[in-house]
Amino acid sequence: MKLPQALTDLIESFEKLPGIGPKSASRIGFYLLNTPEEYLAGFAKNLVKIKSEVKRCSRCHGVSDNGLCSVCADGSRNQKQICVVERAVDMISMEKMGNYKGIYHILGGALNPLDHIGPDDLKIDELVGRVSGDMEIILATNPTIEGEATALYIKRRLESLNLENIKITRIGSGLPMGADLEFADEATLSRAMEGRRAL
Amino acid sequence: MKLPQALTDLIESFEKLPGIGPKSASRIGFYLLNTPEEYLAGFAKNLVKIKSEVKRCSRCHGVSDNGLCSVCADGSRNQKQICVVERAVDMISMEKMGNYKGIYHILGGALNPLDHIGPDDLKIDELVGRVSGDMEIILATNPTIEGEATALYIKRRLESLNLENIKITRIGSGLPMGADLEFADEATLSRAMEGRRAL
Repeated sequence: MKLPQALTDLIESFEKLPGIGPKSASRIGFYLLNTPEEYLAGFAKNLVKIKSEVKRCSRCHGVSDNGLCSVCADGSRNQKQICVVERAVDMISMEKMGNYKGIYHILGGALNPLDHIGPDDLKIDELVGRVSGDMEIILATNPTIEGEATALYIKRRLESLNLENIKITRIGSGLPMGADLEFADEATLSRAMEGRRAL
Repeated sequence: MKLPQALTDLIESFEKLPGIGPKSASRIGFYLLNTPEEYLAGFAKNLVKIKSEVKRCSRCHGVSDNGLCSVCADGSRNQKQICVVERAVDMISMEKMGNYKGIYHILGGALNPLDHIGPDDLKIDELVGRVSGDMEIILATNPTIEGEATALYIKRRLESLNLENIKITRIGSGLPMGADLEFADEATLSRAMEGRRAL
């Protein structure tokens, strides 16, 4: 059966989003058919306005309404501890955890030669510019091949600055809480063994 | 951490959609931040245009580009068999199954006194207007309290017409294919027993 073109177009728009398959997209499409016109107009407006209204924080490159994001604008945060993450959404996850009191730096991705993403495509120079002596830099890029390579590259760049009393750390890798050894993959188990601690 | 208002607004728009929880909505919101402006504008246009471009089929009340939907416009379909469903999306599911060759009637919902949906809010009069003698009416409303009540109501309305040679059927209820008796609920099992057939 041929669906109306406008409905097919809308379903395709939803299918392209992360985590939405063809079935969900179709369900959403038909659901929206029965919503009022003002609701759809509001939704459309919300889509378009993020480009003009969501700014990048001028310090950490996270998301903000105006100049600085709420973390950078908060003077009570520890300015001597920078947590480096790939994306703004990673910063939100960290903030949800709630017990990190330092500041952030968002790279905008990870090094990925296959996708032609090199150091100049990330906010690495900007990070280097923020680092001074007596600081801890926590490299919290994802524990993937790209994230590990990015962490290693940044470590070398920062070490070459020869700053005094600088500590470069990497977030811990291992078994996630609640996991089962039986189903853990080899790479994760190997990291868990390397990262073992005295009790 | 406070997110920019425009981003929060967009995430809330997605959260209201069926099947999308707060985590998925947030993921989509951050994903869309990194998409080009033209993409967002196209998405917004697709949202708004469904109201003006998707029409109701003048015969079955399903979705169509213009006057008739592709099923009603297809002269080869059996005009003496009407499958009555709650929503246009149910018709799409039936068409995907592929072996029904009759036509449809979309009610636009089911009777639901709690939501103040009575017979006049559904396309029941329109269905009655389409029914003539020598026909089969397959009541394929959902096997829920509302869907069962709607099927029963329609059955009584159609019987009161005293048409010749009219057959009113209800789609089968029972265990879905691939299900496990152990995990079936009592209502489904009870229906499966009632609906048992000679082998």
